[in-house]
Amino acid sequence: MKYTISVLVENQPGVLSKVAGLFSRRGFNIDSLAVGVTEDPSISRMTIVVDGDEYIVEQLEKQLNKLIPVIKVKTLEKGAYIPRALSLIKVSVSAGQRADIMRIVELTGGKIVDATRTTITIEFADSAERTDTLEALLRPFGIKEWVRTGIIAIEKGPDPTRKVSG
Amino acid sequence: MKYTISVLVENQPGVLSKVAGLFSRRGFNIDSLAVGVTEDPSISRMTIVVDGDEYIVEQLEKQLNKLIPVIKVKTLEKGAYIPRALSLIKVSVSAGQRADIMRIVELTGGKIVDATRTTITIEFADSAERTDTLEALLRPFGIKEWVRTGIIAIEKGPDPTRKVSG
Repeated sequence: MKYTISVLVENQPGVLSKVAGLFSRRGFNIDSLAVGVTEDPSISRMTIVVDGDEYIVEQLEKQLNKLIPVIKVKTLEKGAYIPRALSLIKVSVSAGQRADIMRIVELTGGKIVDATRTTITIEFADSAERTDTLEALLRPFGIKEWVRTGIIAIEKGPDPTRKVSG
Repeated sequence: MKYTISVLVENQPGVLSKVAGLFSRRGFNIDSLAVGVTEDPSISRMTIVVDGDEYIVEQLEKQLNKLIPVIKVKTLEKGAYIPRALSLIKVSVSAGQRADIMRIVELTGGKIVDATRTTITIEFADSAERTDTLEALLRPFGIKEWVRTGIIAIEKGPDPTRKVSG
């Protein structure tokens, strides 16, 4: 099962190396990692997706909490957060295919950010599942380059009427 | 000056730790880092933004090329690539402010992904500069949480008529 862990760390040199080292030494496999500063520039947030079980995630939380620059560790509750990843995708295109690709981009909520005689470059932000769908739709045209971020996640706002479920 | 370096690495455990360790040991400061798989699942791409001069970037390229799981290192040429980062932003909101925030989101090309009685959560993908603009526009409302990825970048498609410039 995949778990999304949000880790607040002090924004200082070497912190990424410490966190990455912990995963590497313990043999925990990172599925996805994203790092960025928060609303407070002295603090960064790492969003880490790991494939494992509850025991592994508990161990990870404990180990992360022991690292000096780590401020807070939180495993996000399924259904209570919005996950997103960003992709930039360059697709090969011939004249007859341009309309097809434009339709796919429109249908999936993507955005064309560059177009040349032989390529179309698409920006796409959505969940991992929807990104997989786009990949399946674009693959037949020939994907020249796919650049993507790790997954980030934000907890939904407080709402007494919303039921949190998987 | 900021340099954007694109590093292709084998998608294996420990590679992030090696790259992060190199930066940490040498005292190179990472401005932004994004990691994600490429169109080939056995290969990951790290996009690293560093603040430095030409000498530092040359040294970095050399050191990165020496690491075993590194396949290819390329410093992207200014103006020849499209940089993007993704943010998820939760803003405090009172009834009277909702229309204002919706207008800002529409004007800047963002997307509202969650709304409650007291919060609005926005998804925003653009360059670092435009993200800073959005931050300045939203700050007066009260930013509760800002989660962001590092910057990713893709080279523009080949176009004989386009002049590459800074």
